[in-house]
Amino acid sequence: MLAVPTVTPAQALSATVRVATPQQAYDIVIGERLLVPASFDGLPRATQALVVSNPTVHALHGAALQAALVPHHRRVHTVLLPDGEQHKDLATLNQVFDALLGHGCDRKTVLYALGGGVVGDMTGFAAACYMRGVPFVQVPTTLLAQVDSSVGGKTAVNHALGKNMIGAFYQPQRVVVSLDTLDTLPARELRAGLAEVIKYGPIADMAFFGWIESTLDALLSRDRAALAHAVQRSCEIKAEVVGADERESGLRAILNFGHTFGHAIEAGQGYGAWLHGEAVGCGMVIAADLSARLGLVDATLAARVQQLVARAGLPVRAPHMPMDRWFELMAVDKKAADGDIRYVLLNGPGRADMRPAERGLVEAVIRDHTAPAA
Amino acid sequence: MLAVPTVTPAQALSATVRVATPQQAYDIVIGERLLVPASFDGLPRATQALVVSNPTVHALHGAALQAALVPHHRRVHTVLLPDGEQHKDLATLNQVFDALLGHGCDRKTVLYALGGGVVGDMTGFAAACYMRGVPFVQVPTTLLAQVDSSVGGKTAVNHALGKNMIGAFYQPQRVVVSLDTLDTLPARELRAGLAEVIKYGPIADMAFFGWIESTLDALLSRDRAALAHAVQRSCEIKAEVVGADERESGLRAILNFGHTFGHAIEAGQGYGAWLHGEAVGCGMVIAADLSARLGLVDATLAARVQQLVARAGLPVRAPHMPMDRWFELMAVDKKAADGDIRYVLLNGPGRADMRPAERGLVEAVIRDHTAPAA
Repeated sequence: MLAVPTVTPAQALSATVRVATPQQAYDIVIGERLLVPASFDGLPRATQALVVSNPTVHALHGAALQAALVPHHRRVHTVLLPDGEQHKDLATLNQVFDALLGHGCDRKTVLYALGGGVVGDMTGFAAACYMRGVPFVQVPTTLLAQVDSSVGGKTAVNHALGKNMIGAFYQPQRVVVSLDTLDTLPARELRAGLAEVIKYGPIADMAFFGWIESTLDALLSRDRAALAHAVQRSCEIKAEVVGADERESGLRAILNFGHTFGHAIEAGQGYGAWLHGEAVGCGMVIAADLSARLGLVDATLAARVQQLVARAGLPVRAPHMPMDRWFELMAVDKKAADGDIRYVLLNGPGRADMRPAERGLVEAVIRDHTAPAA
Repeated sequence: MLAVPTVTPAQALSATVRVATPQQAYDIVIGERLLVPASFDGLPRATQALVVSNPTVHALHGAALQAALVPHHRRVHTVLLPDGEQHKDLATLNQVFDALLGHGCDRKTVLYALGGGVVGDMTGFAAACYMRGVPFVQVPTTLLAQVDSSVGGKTAVNHALGKNMIGAFYQPQRVVVSLDTLDTLPARELRAGLAEVIKYGPIADMAFFGWIESTLDALLSRDRAALAHAVQRSCEIKAEVVGADERESGLRAILNFGHTFGHAIEAGQGYGAWLHGEAVGCGMVIAADLSARLGLVDATLAARVQQLVARAGLPVRAPHMPMDRWFELMAVDKKAADGDIRYVLLNGPGRADMRPAERGLVEAVIRDHTAPAA
């Protein structure tokens, strides 16, 4: 068990996690009130900057970020994208290019992603593509983006036939996590973010899993010290995995624990019906149970995962979908090879890997975790 | 002067040029009748392949490529894109993703670009983005693609506000140049391709420039030995430059000699009105003259460039456009920084670099090379 108290002293609220990939090394800076000029010192110099956000987040934090950036760039433009996974597509991405070209932005222009995973994924991909690559900075304002999507350089948009199918591996220059942005996060999104926090336990660090179990109430009530540690430890684990395997040749796939089932739920229900974290939480319950039924882990671990997901206020029952639909959706998952679905499964407490599984067993597990047909 | 006769013995018709970039090392294989299985030996193994082409080229060479690929992939799909620079956009790109996802293509699928620069640029960019990167092979069928666009890993689509503004540096696994594909190339496109061949002379190799001057008639009459040498030497120079500077931090920009003016002509006239090579040819005439007027090279060199471009049957007079329009179009060029236009200029015979130039002088040079207003 990690010796981390549930109430942490004030100095622990600030931390820096280094991410080192072959493409780029950068810091995740975690702390309070970080939407200030000093947080953006030392980045590539550029005359122009473009803040990419959505109307909701921009109304809350846009003015603070703008003020923080004005000392660094002669002109700071803003483009607001419609919110929601259902808008994460090439057409919305083109709005970022419209703004960049409309303002005459050159190849030194820095993009700032102010928002959650949708804004971060699209800003990162736009930065990867604009003039074949401009610098960008992640300023994640949701728990999910802070612990997962803003870190590691996976950027993408969705296609009508699959989630995150069009994208790039493209690392940010820095990730600035200002914890006070979580104060205004809707409760449903906070819980969805906790799904990705919980994920790091069974795949990499059972001590952290135990800490989450004992600290969940503080996390749900937005205790800032608890959130600071949850973000820091999540980012440390992700940084370690991504540093060892930037392009998901093997190890990195463990970060997708729960995601094969989760993606099927998201896509099957239509983007936006389930939040990504909700679908992943439910997917983890199914994947943990599948791991147990394969004899890879003890059934008590699967039960603990389900219990923690449920306590976090996340759904543990999948929506009803025909079995063929499940497998059709899972087959387009990027981890699939030659049509064979490969599942990220626990193969011990705090350990995971990727492997195929017999369809009949997978069907049984899905069925056992599905809500009765309406 | 290079000791290359205008009639080359048969064995010289086959050559391999190695391109070594930090991202990827690969071969450009040049020869006759290369649309055969052996040309595609040793590439990454994949169950599925997707040939991207346009209706015109596919009617000529699609069956041969299909037959060459069948021994390598269990399923070989085809998607045909509309031809022409005006279709090189995100909407057309999405047709490639539609095909990939519609066929259930996984992240090992190999894309084959069969066509000219438009097909190659889009296929390469689609390969860079699909599932964040799948392998691709260039099979260029125009002279311009064989000597320029298929080599070096620049991929992109256009935006309404600028050419090649959205893209990636993404290297192919191999470039297969089958010279007999030039037999069916329209004469106008052959001439446009010669513009890019001519370009390599003044920027890098005056002996090659002299060889082109003495061999132009053979090139225009499609003498295969002459074309083989033109393609090989062009690829050698490009490979050397790209190997030293994959991402255009400096040196690589010399390959854009004539392109700043050329892009303005293309964009100003509407994509498709001028072929890319035609615009580049005219742009080289202007850029060479600007170099001479700045005292960087002798006026006789600028005159030789103009004479050779004219002899190749390419336009040497720019279309009439208001001066503000020229500078507005040139300012969105990717080489521009903070609104300052930077020109690729000759700074000696066989040498080039990038520098700004006084607007009054540039205006005078453009004016002297512009056709009278209609």
